[in-house]
Amino acid sequence: MMRWIRFSQNGNTYYGILNGEQIQRVQGTPFDSYKVEQIFIDLADVKIEIPVLPRTFYCAGLNYSEHVLDVAKKQGKDPNLPTRAEIGYRANNALIAHNEAVLIPKDATEKIHYEGELVVVIGKKAKYLNRENALSCVLGYTIGNDVSERSWQAKDRTFWRSKNSDTFKPMGPWIDTIFDLSNAQTTVKVNGKLTTSYKTSNMMFDVPAFIESITRYITLWPGDVIWMGTDGASPNIASGDVVEIEISGLGTLRNPFIREGGDLS
Amino acid sequence: MMRWIRFSQNGNTYYGILNGEQIQRVQGTPFDSYKVEQIFIDLADVKIEIPVLPRTFYCAGLNYSEHVLDVAKKQGKDPNLPTRAEIGYRANNALIAHNEAVLIPKDATEKIHYEGELVVVIGKKAKYLNRENALSCVLGYTIGNDVSERSWQAKDRTFWRSKNSDTFKPMGPWIDTIFDLSNAQTTVKVNGKLTTSYKTSNMMFDVPAFIESITRYITLWPGDVIWMGTDGASPNIASGDVVEIEISGLGTLRNPFIREGGDLS
Repeated sequence: MMRWIRFSQNGNTYYGILNGEQIQRVQGTPFDSYKVEQIFIDLADVKIEIPVLPRTFYCAGLNYSEHVLDVAKKQGKDPNLPTRAEIGYRANNALIAHNEAVLIPKDATEKIHYEGELVVVIGKKAKYLNRENALSCVLGYTIGNDVSERSWQAKDRTFWRSKNSDTFKPMGPWIDTIFDLSNAQTTVKVNGKLTTSYKTSNMMFDVPAFIESITRYITLWPGDVIWMGTDGASPNIASGDVVEIEISGLGTLRNPFIREGGDLS
Repeated sequence: MMRWIRFSQNGNTYYGILNGEQIQRVQGTPFDSYKVEQIFIDLADVKIEIPVLPRTFYCAGLNYSEHVLDVAKKQGKDPNLPTRAEIGYRANNALIAHNEAVLIPKDATEKIHYEGELVVVIGKKAKYLNRENALSCVLGYTIGNDVSERSWQAKDRTFWRSKNSDTFKPMGPWIDTIFDLSNAQTTVKVNGKLTTSYKTSNMMFDVPAFIESITRYITLWPGDVIWMGTDGASPNIASGDVVEIEISGLGTLRNPFIREGGDLS
């Protein structure tokens, strides 16, 4: 098992291997070649950065049935359950790291929701994979929060601001190369209080299904990420709230939410 | 006026400044700092590469009214003209350079269409721009071909394979820092025969409108690209066809199309 962390210290950004609370720095990255250095740093002394800036940022979107039904109901629309593993996209501008603040735009409504998601991090260039060898291109797993403004999501032609406004895509805190999906639970807490809990593996289309589907037409590249969707519902998140998403074995992604303009109502 | 070219030679990739048929190599990139070198290379001796691998790949989608009406008609749907400048996304995996081949997937229908588009290349980090200062973040302009498989576009939940299959996004050949949009014409030829011609400036929402709209919520970064949409209609493009898109002052983006599996019918 290896836990990859990307961090900055004194203005420089590095990858390292995290053991407990200690980072061993490396030269290079987990996506090409790297050399482990004899430099050890306390986790408390660094700023955690997003684990990777993806070349392409994929997301499954609707991939847990309870969530699809909930969103449709709140939008007054008929639910439209996917019948195939068709991938979607998010935008790199929106990525922020563990502990960084989600900034709610001034003119957003109160319908700001979290979506706690498993994130697959691609480690090797891959095309034409099948169910059996799909996971051979995976480096590891991390956690994402697919923050959404539901009123914009319902009325805009695209997800450009509802899901891709700056800071709307917290990702981290790190990448674990070993992960037991079959026993994992995704739990979300708001200000320390449990608000959502679901079995991470309860997907309509699993990781091999998406990788098989994508790579029939699309080359996956090292550093690409695939966000696997979310289950359940989110309460409205207000300025001052702190959202923590835990997935068993992957740690906890924590981010405060602050409304721009300083309105803490 | 400066014409930036990205090219490779002997396995290395560089930026250079193109004067006529001669490249002057630079150290660095036009997106951060660079130093002009006293190294001159003939354009004929290099492989042209995509002018930039964007951090985020934006596209306007529907932005010329004639095209919107044509696509709707061919899909048997009611046209839905945008009322606001709402941006969409494409995927980096699909980018290819000038002269590289668009590979039509084996199971694609015959409805393979080109879309010749003006591409805006961002040079500076920008947020909260308005109509008046919007163009201050622009490095220059190039050409894009938003290749589409219309049967998939009509029936899939997202544009993942209809518009983002590998090789479906030719971009280039280079970046011009000076461009007279008001007098520009976009012309497309298939196998040397004119098939589409439209006034490039005939957009529903112009470049400042999109930059103002995007940067209200989203930070534009150096290297981001915005594809501005297309007008008119495309014939079906078959294996063996060559598509050339010219925009006045920006050169010609040329790409052969080949069906995977070698079916040249």
